[in-house]
Amino acid sequence: MKIRQLMREADSFVDKEVTIEGWIRNSRFSKNVGFIELNDGSTFKNLQVVVGKEIENYDELDKQNLSASLCVEGKFVATGNNKNPYEIQATKVIVLGESSEKFPIQKQRQTFEFMRTIPHLRPRTNTYRAVFRLRSILAFGLHKFFQERDFVYVNPPIITASDAEGAGEMFNVTTIDPNDPPRREDGKVDYNKDFFSKKAYMTVSGQLEAEDYALAFGNVYTFGPTFRAEVSNTPRHAAEFWMLEPEMAFADYNVCMDTAEAMIKYAIDYILENAKDEMEFFNQWIDKGLIERLTKLRNSEFARITYTKAIELLKESGEKFEFPVEWGMDLQTEHERYLSEKIVDGPVFVTDYPKDIKAFYMKRNDDGKTVAAFDMLVPGVGELIGGSQREERYDELVKSMIDNGLKPEEYQNYLDLRRFGTVVHSGFGLGFERAMMYVTGMKNIRDVIAYPRYVNAFANQK
Amino acid sequence: MKIRQLMREADSFVDKEVTIEGWIRNSRFSKNVGFIELNDGSTFKNLQVVVGKEIENYDELDKQNLSASLCVEGKFVATGNNKNPYEIQATKVIVLGESSEKFPIQKQRQTFEFMRTIPHLRPRTNTYRAVFRLRSILAFGLHKFFQERDFVYVNPPIITASDAEGAGEMFNVTTIDPNDPPRREDGKVDYNKDFFSKKAYMTVSGQLEAEDYALAFGNVYTFGPTFRAEVSNTPRHAAEFWMLEPEMAFADYNVCMDTAEAMIKYAIDYILENAKDEMEFFNQWIDKGLIERLTKLRNSEFARITYTKAIELLKESGEKFEFPVEWGMDLQTEHERYLSEKIVDGPVFVTDYPKDIKAFYMKRNDDGKTVAAFDMLVPGVGELIGGSQREERYDELVKSMIDNGLKPEEYQNYLDLRRFGTVVHSGFGLGFERAMMYVTGMKNIRDVIAYPRYVNAFANQK
Repeated sequence: MKIRQLMREADSFVDKEVTIEGWIRNSRFSKNVGFIELNDGSTFKNLQVVVGKEIENYDELDKQNLSASLCVEGKFVATGNNKNPYEIQATKVIVLGESSEKFPIQKQRQTFEFMRTIPHLRPRTNTYRAVFRLRSILAFGLHKFFQERDFVYVNPPIITASDAEGAGEMFNVTTIDPNDPPRREDGKVDYNKDFFSKKAYMTVSGQLEAEDYALAFGNVYTFGPTFRAEVSNTPRHAAEFWMLEPEMAFADYNVCMDTAEAMIKYAIDYILENAKDEMEFFNQWIDKGLIERLTKLRNSEFARITYTKAIELLKESGEKFEFPVEWGMDLQTEHERYLSEKIVDGPVFVTDYPKDIKAFYMKRNDDGKTVAAFDMLVPGVGELIGGSQREERYDELVKSMIDNGLKPEEYQNYLDLRRFGTVVHSGFGLGFERAMMYVTGMKNIRDVIAYPRYVNAFANQK
Repeated sequence: MKIRQLMREADSFVDKEVTIEGWIRNSRFSKNVGFIELNDGSTFKNLQVVVGKEIENYDELDKQNLSASLCVEGKFVATGNNKNPYEIQATKVIVLGESSEKFPIQKQRQTFEFMRTIPHLRPRTNTYRAVFRLRSILAFGLHKFFQERDFVYVNPPIITASDAEGAGEMFNVTTIDPNDPPRREDGKVDYNKDFFSKKAYMTVSGQLEAEDYALAFGNVYTFGPTFRAEVSNTPRHAAEFWMLEPEMAFADYNVCMDTAEAMIKYAIDYILENAKDEMEFFNQWIDKGLIERLTKLRNSEFARITYTKAIELLKESGEKFEFPVEWGMDLQTEHERYLSEKIVDGPVFVTDYPKDIKAFYMKRNDDGKTVAAFDMLVPGVGELIGGSQREERYDELVKSMIDNGLKPEEYQNYLDLRRFGTVVHSGFGLGFERAMMYVTGMKNIRDVIAYPRYVNAFANQK
């Protein structure tokens, strides 16, 4: 039986014989009694197993190392202790799989850096057990939010032929052997002979495909891996990360912001309800005040101010920033945090950014200077979500492509959406790991990705 | 308002003024009245809009091409017609975005082959609208099944350093320019200078990582894209496809088969309940008898027979097969279908295959000849799911690796699971697109993937 089931229906099992299986997460043995904290992965918390000297293989059990796996038969009893209200008084314990003194996760606290060297074993620790169950629950909560609202889940391709966006930062996908590549007459590598008959890349975003589907289904979302060959070794960047990208037709950016706000609130409710033990763990050990902060956000009405107003307010504040504030600049994290923490004191959408610092597909406002973009800024982090209304006017989009140095003839499919029944539409992107860091308080993106990928990631592997 | 909301709460909207937006999927205009079938993507079915001559821009509307987008105000009325019980009598219609005569999807039926050339527009047709909403609903149904059972959703990496499994068929992920690669002293390309400091590949399966997590969380599942650089141009193969891979600790392969059976039944219930219109469409236009076939499967008890017994039964059948039946052979689709359609007349798990035709990680049975593997065969298709108990014994696993020509030292992490509290565990894989084809009756995998990827896929792109 799973420990989760036992705890869920504890009343009906008290004083009954039960059988559980799990791994030793902790144990202490004295001459006559042993206490084993067993975990089968179904719950965050361990369940204590009391082993009396009368157990046949008491000495064998005493010798077991951390992470050994056991099958335990015994009586499930109420302890009267609030913190650990139940335990099992074992009548029979079988060692299923021994562990070893060399098991690298020992009782003394070990660093996250060390844990990153053993990605296959670290989910056996409290922190990572909490992180990766939360990741699962948060992912499902986000799916649930969109499915309940009839958004269609779309899977854009990972492999793409388009190198237009973010060119230099894309990974090439190939079956060409660079030691002996097929060559054209001019001596250059002949990608027409590559697997896909053209140079292929890993996607940096599913947005353009999401737009195709939004203009058929109305409301859609993507949720899957995206890639960036960025040579940045920071706690916030990874080469492989998950993005959630909703796209809504017949919706301007105000509707889109409403959706983003509702989604964040739903997600917070969902994890506080469905991952109580994990969230309490983060709150106690990783980021004190986390639950209060999330609850406050959840109960806030998200403010909305324009970029232009934000620049004014930042200037008026008199605050010294590392990057001086000028209209036309991209907001840095210091500005974003100051805005949401000091000026607004809560979550805030900053809207209508200068067109020159935003992407070509964003809808140009009538002022000729700004686009209908928005970022959601939250206290403690800065930007959590970025989105925009898309330029739905054919001529304006062509103009914007040219202004941005893109060739409209390479975007015929994208332009088709503006030729055949164009509509106002908007979307946003949530970096899933950024969201994970925000709701757990974990400070390094490598600790919320099961097997993080970044520059030189495989350097130390055989 | 979305048409879905209108239809869902139809009673409360009858004879009220409503406003909807959508695309023209069909229209016919006479001198005095026009009928527009409008679809906003929220429902499979169109909603008829009746436009009277008195509408100011009647002539403009008459001239609109398929896929033009409209905003319609009017009265929502009950028609008394069973097939199309509601329509809108328009009082005002605004053309939001015109379409063109060149819109490539016209009223006459067009081939799936043609549709594959316009992946960005094909979701605007009935078939693909049904396929891709169903894909979304099925994906969520599968998530829901596992989340309700407390399985943890794990995201194994897409980019991997391991080329061990399926070597020749993997894509290389690189930032090296093959026209001017970094070279070692011996002249070979120096992958230590590549982005990850080692040759990197796209994953063919998340199973090994799922095992890591199963041995921490008990029950886990993966659901995401996987890749195979197979040069096979068949209706059943794609280079990029989604796999669902559950993995269960403290579970032998019988428990795992129970889960696979329950999952399939749950999935069928879920789509029949939540995608009624789409399933009726497939049943009527794509695969007559589909719903009956799925319902029969859903109500079946799945049989279980060993491979050895299956070989006996196939031999006894007297049936002439293209591939003659011998113990030790891999079952072909013709055998699989004959087994489930003629011999069992229903879904069947075939178990305990010869070890020589199965993967190294499968648990060896005591007979020394077979492994604890299983395939789920279903009528009409053959294999839908493949799985196995994993070899949890360290020494046996090392032996199996060597027998299979693998180097145990390259699998230290995988072997660690057998050193530190090993447990009986099992898992299976479901090719998501195969499942999609099975439940929709679609015959080509390229019609259930939004942007299918296969050999030479980009050959005709600019």
